[in-house]
Amino acid sequence: MRDISWSKKEKEIARRAFGNAYQKECTALVMRSKKMLDSINDPRDIWKIHDMLTESREEIDLKYDYRYSVLISVFARLLRESWLTETDFAGLREDKLESIKALSEII
Amino acid sequence: MRDISWSKKEKEIARRAFGNAYQKECTALVMRSKKMLDSINDPRDIWKIHDMLTESREEIDLKYDYRYSVLISVFARLLRESWLTETDFAGLREDKLESIKALSEII
Repeated sequence: MRDISWSKKEKEIARRAFGNAYQKECTALVMRSKKMLDSINDPRDIWKIHDMLTESREEIDLKYDYRYSVLISVFARLLRESWLTETDFAGLREDKLESIKALSEII
Repeated sequence: MRDISWSKKEKEIARRAFGNAYQKECTALVMRSKKMLDSINDPRDIWKIHDMLTESREEIDLKYDYRYSVLISVFARLLRESWLTETDFAGLREDKLESIKALSEII
């Protein structure tokens, strides 16, 4: 997987898909935070929201790794978690698509 | 300041004032977070809210120190920052009240 090559066009598709997934996760986090904030009864529960954001940030920072050497497995995970769909990968070489799909089943 | 004594009644007053101020700060933080969340245009700005909460938590954790040896200066700061008013200290011994007020002017 490490020596897989990415054409210029594929890099554009990858960059866009990566950015879209990141945007979607952040949007979901905004919604989750709003929901938590709206249902706060005890103001001290603000720290539960902080804890949730800290945990999410660590997870997202680790997950969104745009090195081409690991991008197939990053995309496989994003596919499995439904942040991306197969249509987001339209235009990638067939072997890459197959690797992403296969890996998403076992990751 | 370190050897100042607190009667049982004074401890109750202090504990209540301390709790009220903490509750107020947390409430203000909930409101601030809501306002920031509502004005988000770019979902990635969720991290700005996380940064704000991290900073606030560190500050609040440091500030709310309920050791009797430092409580006069804690109360002076809370008075200066308007999380407490002089009425919150009603029932404390006069010398404590004076110390809190005097310190709140210079802290």
